[in-house]
Amino acid sequence: MIPPDGRTLAQTSEQELLASIFPVLPTRPEVLIGVGDDTALLQVPSGAVLVTTDSMVLGRDWIDDWSTGADVGHKVVTQNLADIAAMGGVCTGVVVSLIAGRDTTVAWCRELNEGIADACRAENVAVLGGDLSSAPDDVRVVSITALGELNGSSAVRRDGARVGDVVAVSDSLGRSDAGLRLLQAGTTDRAPELVAFHRRPVARLAAGPDAAAAGATALMDISDGLVRDGRRIATASGVGIDLSRELLTPFARRLETAVGDDAWACVLSGGEEHTLLATFPDDVVPQGWSLVGRVVEGSDVTLDGQPQQGGGWDHFGG
Amino acid sequence: MIPPDGRTLAQTSEQELLASIFPVLPTRPEVLIGVGDDTALLQVPSGAVLVTTDSMVLGRDWIDDWSTGADVGHKVVTQNLADIAAMGGVCTGVVVSLIAGRDTTVAWCRELNEGIADACRAENVAVLGGDLSSAPDDVRVVSITALGELNGSSAVRRDGARVGDVVAVSDSLGRSDAGLRLLQAGTTDRAPELVAFHRRPVARLAAGPDAAAAGATALMDISDGLVRDGRRIATASGVGIDLSRELLTPFARRLETAVGDDAWACVLSGGEEHTLLATFPDDVVPQGWSLVGRVVEGSDVTLDGQPQQGGGWDHFGG
Repeated sequence: MIPPDGRTLAQTSEQELLASIFPVLPTRPEVLIGVGDDTALLQVPSGAVLVTTDSMVLGRDWIDDWSTGADVGHKVVTQNLADIAAMGGVCTGVVVSLIAGRDTTVAWCRELNEGIADACRAENVAVLGGDLSSAPDDVRVVSITALGELNGSSAVRRDGARVGDVVAVSDSLGRSDAGLRLLQAGTTDRAPELVAFHRRPVARLAAGPDAAAAGATALMDISDGLVRDGRRIATASGVGIDLSRELLTPFARRLETAVGDDAWACVLSGGEEHTLLATFPDDVVPQGWSLVGRVVEGSDVTLDGQPQQGGGWDHFGG
Repeated sequence: MIPPDGRTLAQTSEQELLASIFPVLPTRPEVLIGVGDDTALLQVPSGAVLVTTDSMVLGRDWIDDWSTGADVGHKVVTQNLADIAAMGGVCTGVVVSLIAGRDTTVAWCRELNEGIADACRAENVAVLGGDLSSAPDDVRVVSITALGELNGSSAVRRDGARVGDVVAVSDSLGRSDAGLRLLQAGTTDRAPELVAFHRRPVARLAAGPDAAAAGATALMDISDGLVRDGRRIATASGVGIDLSRELLTPFARRLETAVGDDAWACVLSGGEEHTLLATFPDDVVPQGWSLVGRVVEGSDVTLDGQPQQGGGWDHFGG
């Protein structure tokens, strides 16, 4: 348990904060040098390292009324680990950057750290190091960079989808978006499990290496929405992706009690789901994956042949 | 040259911005998968990777009146590369995270990118990937995670300094702090070269592997000030460090014309210098390094035997 600590960062020192953070962090035998020096040193037995980075920003990716520090820690780890899984790899270690206004409480920082440590420990991921920076009040950013390895399989990129492949997902669609809508509407009691998933999405990370081993031709994780992320595979591979309303209906049905007519928007455009999206030759779809469409001639994402506009999150204006 | 682009991020799209950023980025043969997929994949011939992260925050680490986007890009790369050098290593690749309010101009983002790309190219460092996130207006954070290798030498940590070792620095002291003081005083014409160094510190990165090869017993880079960072070596090694006023006098002299009586404060406490600080057995100090003191019995940093309070930058209150 974290002792309550209502002090702000302005009332503590970097050194004191780090002293309470370091002992909680998980490690593993491949970590030759861990937290506390200029850099960490991590063994890479396969001779090649996967690397990715993803951030969460207060006021955009979370608000304190809806998410605890531990929720934020879990979520930002999951986002990064899903990106590693989306190449067919397994994460070995992360570095964490916290940029926080001096008005941030020490308790929040400790909760964040517990969330990061717990989420990493659950996947045998080491926290290798990090960086603390002060910022103007009201600013809080958590950035993680994750390192991983392929363990013998080839990296699965976005550009290998071929006409005739099937399109499949490793898990749910739209749950995170549906949970967010309940928070926004103040009706969280309609489906607390969706709200919980929005706060701490759980990614089925083993599906990534499974897909690689099975021969997936393209693979990524759904962070910005099925249509938008599907378009990324379509563009990179020079193909079209035709989603099937029939195949997607069960995903929408599961959300209808909670969000009614918004269920389809959640399924098609909901981000932060971290389900994996892949294309496979017809006969090799691994267990636990669900078919949602087909790779076709073309250059965009369609639903039963109909073009889909937008369909997800863009960070800026467009 | 960057075409002027006064549009803000609210008036562009993530995709459009990325399309202008990607072509500028340097790569190298070890990059098996670069920007544009879920993760990058980098060969690590030595079988172990160094990893570090460091950030710059608008309003704390820079203000737009004093630094261009390109200045910020150069500086944040240098900070990270100096951390790799401070283990005795060489940087191979970086990932970049930009968190920016929608009020940020496209032109600024492009300048930042040019600065990062130029600084990396100069050191044969690949930009492996990154992350763009929107943020509330007035927020801008640039985080870099750098990967590197040791190329056969052993990592030099902070905890190996032994009583009787000499203490040496690889380059200047206090230049960045002196430059900042001139900016704050509006007297930049007194020493434009110090102001330029504050905006774009140049680190003698080869000094890190040189020190490792020569047998340095402890090594780090001066990012928070000579006394504060020296204390980190002292604490980790369980020794004292006694700095010599006589040996430091030439460093202060060089700053006196510009900042007068503040010269000693710059030398002892000035951060963001990214000069390397090392301890060596007496007889092995490499060429180009300057002696500044001795490792002694004790537990803190002294100047001619006198205790030094504070002596540098703490991110928070303490």
